[in-house]
Amino acid sequence: MAGRMERLLSLMGAEGLEGFLITDPRNMYYFTGFSGGSMLLITRDAESILFVYGVNYEAAKVKVEGAQVELIEADENPIGRVVKRLEEMGVRSLGFDSLKASTYLKLKSSISRAELRDSGRLVWELRKIKDRTEILLMRRAAELTSMGMRRAMEVVEAGLTERMVAAEIEYEMRRTGSDGVAFDTIVSSGPDSAFPHGGCGDRVIRRGDFVLVDIGAKYMGYCSDLTRTFIMGDPSPKQRRIYEAVRKAQELAVNAARAGVKAKDVDRAAREHISGAGYGEHFVHGLGHGIGLDVHEPPRLSPRSRDVLVEGNVVTVEPGVYIPKFGGVRIEDTVLITADEAEKLTEAPVQMVL
Amino acid sequence: MAGRMERLLSLMGAEGLEGFLITDPRNMYYFTGFSGGSMLLITRDAESILFVYGVNYEAAKVKVEGAQVELIEADENPIGRVVKRLEEMGVRSLGFDSLKASTYLKLKSSISRAELRDSGRLVWELRKIKDRTEILLMRRAAELTSMGMRRAMEVVEAGLTERMVAAEIEYEMRRTGSDGVAFDTIVSSGPDSAFPHGGCGDRVIRRGDFVLVDIGAKYMGYCSDLTRTFIMGDPSPKQRRIYEAVRKAQELAVNAARAGVKAKDVDRAAREHISGAGYGEHFVHGLGHGIGLDVHEPPRLSPRSRDVLVEGNVVTVEPGVYIPKFGGVRIEDTVLITADEAEKLTEAPVQMVL
Repeated sequence: MAGRMERLLSLMGAEGLEGFLITDPRNMYYFTGFSGGSMLLITRDAESILFVYGVNYEAAKVKVEGAQVELIEADENPIGRVVKRLEEMGVRSLGFDSLKASTYLKLKSSISRAELRDSGRLVWELRKIKDRTEILLMRRAAELTSMGMRRAMEVVEAGLTERMVAAEIEYEMRRTGSDGVAFDTIVSSGPDSAFPHGGCGDRVIRRGDFVLVDIGAKYMGYCSDLTRTFIMGDPSPKQRRIYEAVRKAQELAVNAARAGVKAKDVDRAAREHISGAGYGEHFVHGLGHGIGLDVHEPPRLSPRSRDVLVEGNVVTVEPGVYIPKFGGVRIEDTVLITADEAEKLTEAPVQMVL
Repeated sequence: MAGRMERLLSLMGAEGLEGFLITDPRNMYYFTGFSGGSMLLITRDAESILFVYGVNYEAAKVKVEGAQVELIEADENPIGRVVKRLEEMGVRSLGFDSLKASTYLKLKSSISRAELRDSGRLVWELRKIKDRTEILLMRRAAELTSMGMRRAMEVVEAGLTERMVAAEIEYEMRRTGSDGVAFDTIVSSGPDSAFPHGGCGDRVIRRGDFVLVDIGAKYMGYCSDLTRTFIMGDPSPKQRRIYEAVRKAQELAVNAARAGVKAKDVDRAAREHISGAGYGEHFVHGLGHGIGLDVHEPPRLSPRSRDVLVEGNVVTVEPGVYIPKFGGVRIEDTVLITADEAEKLTEAPVQMVL
């Protein structure tokens, strides 16, 4: 964890930032191993300080790495404390990550001399390249997610509600080691599968349905993301065509992805295939997104992305085709970008019929 | 749902706001019934507009109430669209809720004529008083949570890991109708129960442990929050003293809470009892918090709170005592404030020994 703060300090140096105020809980966790802090102040010439309310103070003292822990009094606004420290240290330029506008305005009006700069992208520069520890944790999150999908394939059947399927998947992931879900589990069936983020409800799965299952376990803060779509019983020719277009598009995109390739070119590999099959207008989202402590993070795999993939990126590859009132298909894996390939961290059969 | 936007418009009128930009997903859901939007623009003289990316566009068309839905192109920044609409409408004063500083700065530099005002508290004025529909949904969320606690009381035993207990509780809540957890389930045992937000891990529960179980189901967006602490087997005299102090403090606070009472006085009812028992310094957090679409929202029940409880508030009452390296006890219910009382929405025996 220590190397991370040093890397940020070096990026800060290059940009002339003397301090950095972190308020995003995931960023605090990234730098200190603890997410229960209120604000983290990183400075070039002094030890970093994590400001913590009483409710998390004892835990912070045990768990925080690489920063001193300072107790904030109940109902005290930590901004006051931050301003005091900045003045003591004579910080003249302060970067911040995802500050709320209200906090920004308070800070702005309290510090006269220091310049404030929206510098969240510096932290993303670090976070979008996973280090060895992170890759280990993401492999584990992906394994747990894969176990959830295998459980889905055992339990999905006509007559069961979407919610019951979700309950079984989440139970399997949880008892095998997941800390929770990375996002609301999607089990959407029949026409509802045409909503890419359809959640899950009390609809009863029927023969002939598409059943779209999009799940993610979480392990020590790290997310994973895996989608399979199944057809209950005999697929119609149209269902088969859509499924096959998406399956092949995902294969092409995974094969195209590796370090040095433009993210938009990976998107194009999938998009051209789907367009060629006649479903271009129904692929209504980007091909994928970076994933880590957040379920959606840089880089973006989309037609207008400017990102170039590099070793250590972990991204999703998830083309989909959604026909309103008919249904949708999405096939997704979480992959690790290496020099030679996109290595699938998630693992589940691509099986059309259940 | 319709009445809510009208109530906001009336508050806006009183403050001279001609428009309101909502970016908090819970606030978007509160006003439109849909949380997949990117931004919601509410104006006094025109229909409100929800800006939605393609991925959620079809769902928005079906689900959004009380606003038109406008599609944002992939990679388009919705701020540009908002600015255009504001100029068309001639809006001169715009409130916002929880805008990010980066978005605020973009908006500020694009609109020359309109004044921007941090007005999130106006939405909280509405949200902290639950309407009839909300109370119904919160009752259901609380019922599901109560079922989870009953399951906990069945399964908690020496030899089981904290994680397995959490898995059983979450499975029970999910299959009986929960849409997911309102927050990370806490099952913390032995010395770890001294961390108020201890999460749950792979520690094996042993005889003599405190086991602190803090859970919340979610139903149609609404959260619930319920804590019980159990002692595995024969309590020591010290365990019994701590438990009894917390139990009585919670009872006193619930009895003190009703419309018209100051939130800090309810906090004091519990705090004085715990201090009298000699554990004042170990009650390291406020007595409770409002709960609704967010798990922590106004009003606050704490020593320095300025809130006065009113009918329709839903709040938690959760005193706790945490002795580092020894263990902690918290007892919590979610209650609805009425003219006469604090009605417990969550329901579970307050039982010391398991």
